Amino acid sequence: MGFIVQKFGGTSVGSVERIVNVAERVIEEKIRGNDVVVVVSAMGKTTDQLVKMANELSKNPNKREMDMLLSTGEQVTISLLTMALQEKGYETVSYTGWQAGITTESVHGNARILKIEAERVEQQLKTGKIVVVAGFQGVTENGEITTLGRGGSDTTAVALAAALHADKCDIYTDVTGVYTTDPRYIKSARKLQAISYDEMLELAHLGAGVLHPRAVEYAKNYHVPLEVRSSMEKETGTIIGEEVAMEENLVVRGLAFEDQITRVTIHGLANSLTGLSDVFKTLANRHINVDIIIQSFSNDRTNLSFSIKSHDLKETVEVLKENKSLFPYEKIESESGLAKVSIVGSGMASNPGVAADMFAILAKNGVQIKMVSTSEIKVSTVIEDSQMVNAVESLHEAFGLSHSPLHS
Amino acid sequence: MGFIVQKFGGTSVGSVERIVNVAERVIEEKIRGNDVVVVVSAMGKTTDQLVKMANELSKNPNKREMDMLLSTGEQVTISLLTMALQEKGYETVSYTGWQAGITTESVHGNARILKIEAERVEQQLKTGKIVVVAGFQGVTENGEITTLGRGGSDTTAVALAAALHADKCDIYTDVTGVYTTDPRYIKSARKLQAISYDEMLELAHLGAGVLHPRAVEYAKNYHVPLEVRSSMEKETGTIIGEEVAMEENLVVRGLAFEDQITRVTIHGLANSLTGLSDVFKTLANRHINVDIIIQSFSNDRTNLSFSIKSHDLKETVEVLKENKSLFPYEKIESESGLAKVSIVGSGMASNPGVAADMFAILAKNGVQIKMVSTSEIKVSTVIEDSQMVNAVESLHEAFGLSHSPLHS
Repeated sequence: MGFIVQKFGGTSVGSVERIVNVAERVIEEKIRGNDVVVVVSAMGKTTDQLVKMANELSKNPNKREMDMLLSTGEQVTISLLTMALQEKGYETVSYTGWQAGITTESVHGNARILKIEAERVEQQLKTGKIVVVAGFQGVTENGEITTLGRGGSDTTAVALAAALHADKCDIYTDVTGVYTTDPRYIKSARKLQAISYDEMLELAHLGAGVLHPRAVEYAKNYHVPLEVRSSMEKETGTIIGEEVAMEENLVVRGLAFEDQITRVTIHGLANSLTGLSDVFKTLANRHINVDIIIQSFSNDRTNLSFSIKSHDLKETVEVLKENKSLFPYEKIESESGLAKVSIVGSGMASNPGVAADMFAILAKNGVQIKMVSTSEIKVSTVIEDSQMVNAVESLHEAFGLSHSPLHS
Repeated sequence: MGFIVQKFGGTSVGSVERIVNVAERVIEEKIRGNDVVVVVSAMGKTTDQLVKMANELSKNPNKREMDMLLSTGEQVTISLLTMALQEKGYETVSYTGWQAGITTESVHGNARILKIEAERVEQQLKTGKIVVVAGFQGVTENGEITTLGRGGSDTTAVALAAALHADKCDIYTDVTGVYTTDPRYIKSARKLQAISYDEMLELAHLGAGVLHPRAVEYAKNYHVPLEVRSSMEKETGTIIGEEVAMEENLVVRGLAFEDQITRVTIHGLANSLTGLSDVFKTLANRHINVDIIIQSFSNDRTNLSFSIKSHDLKETVEVLKENKSLFPYEKIESESGLAKVSIVGSGMASNPGVAADMFAILAKNGVQIKMVSTSEIKVSTVIEDSQMVNAVESLHEAFGLSHSPLHS
């Protein structure tokens, strides 16, 4: 007898037929003798349709009212999934976020969960019922409906698993697990059996897109084992947990990459105590995300380079020009058509030569590195867009990720 | 400075454009200096779409889950209307049923409101905000979402008006008011300036369809003045209140009628203390609505006639045959192709000749009366279907309803 929290995303519950399929996956777990709590997102296109109506009424709709609007999406799914389970003869009950006791901070559109008072869910589980909970939503202490922002349903599932002391949280999605790199681009990409929270966090932040970083952080903090698996296929997925036994002593566990990167360089920035913070505060206020930052000094002036998403370039240059009086500089240059390629692996922390290996592999393949950033378990490089796939393939092969480990 | 509760039904909020139109009607009231609470239904076809999905999953979906599902409809409307009002520069906030403190009995699909704890709404009104509340829904003491059944949003509006001591409750709908009879059939039908609660109750029960009887009852009990008016046109509607000054001393205020009526007669029902209650309890258990009942004795046997909707005939006969051992009888006869025509007016109570007048008018027009039922302020007759419109026109003219009163 175990206790499992399952989470199904918007694609998995995108139609009445798919909801029936999800019901079958839930029942499989129940038949194995497990208690089950199911967390679901809004049906496929529902959220888009609601957002479209709101935008017809207002260019900048009130965030509280957007939460009021969007939270209906999951409420529809929980009731339909509950009906599907009841139709198959199972005792089931659905709860919205507020009914499930999911209390969040008083922020709309991107609230964090403060606490979960799950007595109601627990009582229903004790009577043998399957409990279906609306993901992505909660309620403030004052009874205001909130939503958790992107990846919110993952967070709901992990937080419920933590609060209820579940044995495991299964994240059902449209891929079969976490891959060494993106299989849509790299044919030799391989599904990982296991990955650590920290590695997953780096991959999540790097845009692997399978799991939201906030959910992984939550799982790490509360020691909730996760499994990422397919809602359509039956194969086992990827386990995300504490430190993972090395597969074949691999130092690098995964590779992330993205194109549409632009490097912006501010030449001759006047040296001042607040110069650097002024630049990045100004950009942050306009919601421009800056990734890698490199600073170099020459004489009494600083050259500052940073990478951004290419679609933010126009606004970035505008903002920098508008604020030239705040942080005086000589000129701005930019280079677009770039890509970011990163290697991730917990083993790097104890293998200082990994970054050097990466640079050597890239050099051998004629790839010029434009920027570098490193953390304990990650090395990111910015290179030419046109060389991205080639670079990733070379690294994937050279770090031994292209072939199954012997002991799998 | 007044305080008005406005209610807009599903057709009035059926699209984004119509929601903008509703926002304008709300703002008109606000500009007049009134405090405003707005109650809205689900957008036009939303409820049908939700019901369709539920029925694809289950022939008989769980009622609690249906409430969970359907209550999302109004939640969508309140947020969109609030956005529309905010876009026009008005301070506004939306509340679901549970947030507005609408507590109901613990019944799903057709719950009655037990109490309204409207502190939250009151506080927002005090700050000058327009408050938009989801109709049709409430919450039990245990935090379960309920719906109020047919006409539920009317009931929400009236109940909120009562709890908040509003000066008036305006029911906006797709007709311009309450008519002397159905203008789709009777060209000379005329909009009433005013009608009493009791008259409206009789007309509502008789199928005038403008207002749900439960909402009228609520308004009567709590002395809430109602106005039924059009959401598309600006003309004043019909006031529903306490005893209304007679328009031109009219004894009859309105005429209701419906076709598809069948008369069922049970011949030779054995006399017993419980015979009558056994028959009607049996029918009620199968949800067959019986309207007019007539009983006559011959020797030691009873003949019992009653009217039903024609589509219930088959099941009625089945049920009566199945239970013949419970209430023995000789035979069953039925006559379909009938219609019910009723006159309603508070003045009847003090004018005993009105029923006789009605019968005389019908006789003069060659209409044979098959059944009669009377109350203090109503006389109903069952006649041939084919004579219905003719009968209504004659009565409408003869009772002086076809022409505007002088003092209008």
